Amino acid sequence: MIQTNGKKVFNQIKLKAEALFVTCEYLMQYVTGFGPENGAVLVDKNGVTLFTDSRYIEAAEKLFAGTEVTPVLWAGRKVSDILKDYKIVAVSFNETSHADFLKLEKIGVKLVEADTTLFPLMETKNEWELSNIQKACEIAEDAFNELLPEIKEGMTEAEIAALLEYKMRKLGAQGTSFSTIVAFGPHAAVPHHETGNTKLKFGDEILIDFGCKVNGYCSDITRTFLFGDDGKHEEFKKAYQAVLTAHELVKEKLVSGMTGIEADAIAREYLKACGYGELFTHSLGHGVGLNIHERPSLSVKGEQVLCDNMVFSDEPGVYKAGEYGIRIEDTVTLQNGKVKSFMSKTDRNLIIL
Amino acid sequence: MIQTNGKKVFNQIKLKAEALFVTCEYLMQYVTGFGPENGAVLVDKNGVTLFTDSRYIEAAEKLFAGTEVTPVLWAGRKVSDILKDYKIVAVSFNETSHADFLKLEKIGVKLVEADTTLFPLMETKNEWELSNIQKACEIAEDAFNELLPEIKEGMTEAEIAALLEYKMRKLGAQGTSFSTIVAFGPHAAVPHHETGNTKLKFGDEILIDFGCKVNGYCSDITRTFLFGDDGKHEEFKKAYQAVLTAHELVKEKLVSGMTGIEADAIAREYLKACGYGELFTHSLGHGVGLNIHERPSLSVKGEQVLCDNMVFSDEPGVYKAGEYGIRIEDTVTLQNGKVKSFMSKTDRNLIIL
Repeated sequence: MIQTNGKKVFNQIKLKAEALFVTCEYLMQYVTGFGPENGAVLVDKNGVTLFTDSRYIEAAEKLFAGTEVTPVLWAGRKVSDILKDYKIVAVSFNETSHADFLKLEKIGVKLVEADTTLFPLMETKNEWELSNIQKACEIAEDAFNELLPEIKEGMTEAEIAALLEYKMRKLGAQGTSFSTIVAFGPHAAVPHHETGNTKLKFGDEILIDFGCKVNGYCSDITRTFLFGDDGKHEEFKKAYQAVLTAHELVKEKLVSGMTGIEADAIAREYLKACGYGELFTHSLGHGVGLNIHERPSLSVKGEQVLCDNMVFSDEPGVYKAGEYGIRIEDTVTLQNGKVKSFMSKTDRNLIIL
Repeated sequence: MIQTNGKKVFNQIKLKAEALFVTCEYLMQYVTGFGPENGAVLVDKNGVTLFTDSRYIEAAEKLFAGTEVTPVLWAGRKVSDILKDYKIVAVSFNETSHADFLKLEKIGVKLVEADTTLFPLMETKNEWELSNIQKACEIAEDAFNELLPEIKEGMTEAEIAALLEYKMRKLGAQGTSFSTIVAFGPHAAVPHHETGNTKLKFGDEILIDFGCKVNGYCSDITRTFLFGDDGKHEEFKKAYQAVLTAHELVKEKLVSGMTGIEADAIAREYLKACGYGELFTHSLGHGVGLNIHERPSLSVKGEQVLCDNMVFSDEPGVYKAGEYGIRIEDTVTLQNGKVKSFMSKTDRNLIIL
């Protein structure tokens, strides 16, 4: 059942403005639970108004029956009319172009920034948000499990990415949460490798970082495995076990109340002790929600305290330039003080196809 | 061979600023021919500097050898250092968030808008841009032709969309140029129908509006056809012929020097004469390039003059609410004064599967 965040948002926004006005898709989605391609959302003391077009209005009327959200047709309305009775309106400075900001200013209302209110609220998820992320994680895992037996010698990185994305769509995803990364062999040593036309050959390692969206909410998962074992992977296998242990240690030891720095240190100190300190070249994790990268940050700079109902990635990695790269990533949440992974369907132990 | 637009851009920008600074992907792509996920492009009297990260730097150095573009690493550089020696810098007010604009302002340089210079320049395409659009159109048509024999009773709109998108990716597209629209039966009467879970049945009409990207450049194509003929499509078939004739008339009669209004009128007057005036509910076409919708507009309000090397859609349509919808769309260009379609591989005559 859809859960809206309008009241929660207004209780904070009212400290600085009479109303909140947002037009970007993910912010509309956050407030109402529904993000039309074109539209606007107004939140004030009377509730939430969703301005949308004829494509969405019927669906929106059904969806929001009995909720705080009133859907109305956008067509024929002017933003200046919608905002003219307010003195102070909060808008997202990060998600409004400067050109649009100048237009809003001409209306004559005072505009204040909404982001320092909205972004912290968005860090903790309600049940409905968590259920969407759960579903997006399940689809990603199911697609991965379907993909494994279809991987054949000679396929390119781009082909595997296309096939995996197709499977996620077919299983009910809205689309990908970011462009799928498929990296063969030494390409895996580049954490954000550009998926290309390299062909798969026996003995290659394969790193796949991917995710999909359900009702706007993202999943994020990485698996690293071998396409056959040519006997040249001793060092890789040793590093794999270290990364896996680091990944599992985070799930075990991270508790609500820790900072992002402390969370990151769980994996970092373990990998350092194993001799991989220099090769863990990125942060442990990042928030996941309507955006694939959002707050909080689990890194050496992540001062923020982690708390229940936050959702983030647990993704330690070890990268040896020109040789191999390993990353094992789940999307997880904090519930009752402890880490709960959204992922339970795929193997984290080293798979050798 | 990559063609950059840096010199062309600087010749116009210098009338209002010493330099242009852009950070949005499609504007970087327009200036340099290459759009990294993160980066920035600076254009001044000395040439073009592309700031990019370690993922792209090697590829960029090869790509730009001997051109006006110098790729350098972004890491460790501050925008304030890059811009500090200029008095006036042009930036895109439409593609810079207000938050980023405020940060740029703090540097102390005067910021002027770049869009009224850039957007008109982007309307006419160079040979390299045209060749990318050609390739994106070919992939879309090839994917459509592969799709047709795989369409089966019981498939959902979303499944067909996913399959078509997979085929485009596999044929070499970077991704879709917009979210594929698949509409069965009366859904086709909604020009921007939300692709859903309706199942295909014998006798349904199918409308598919889709496209893909090659080097950032888009294709846009719509085909309408029947999944078997249940003998209930007499009115649909009559309207189909009218839309097809309107589509072809545009290709025949539209010449460089006409306005968007005159172009639109070619199709609109014909459909009106056939009795479909009220049912052609949108404009004839829109520019296609690095964005799926850009200038010029071929519509009742399109005052702009159309000229050689512009690229736009030719997409008349007839929509009868609750019954059927027909749209036939090619991406076309003006060359030597006349329309040349990028599409030659798919049938525009009514297909009955």
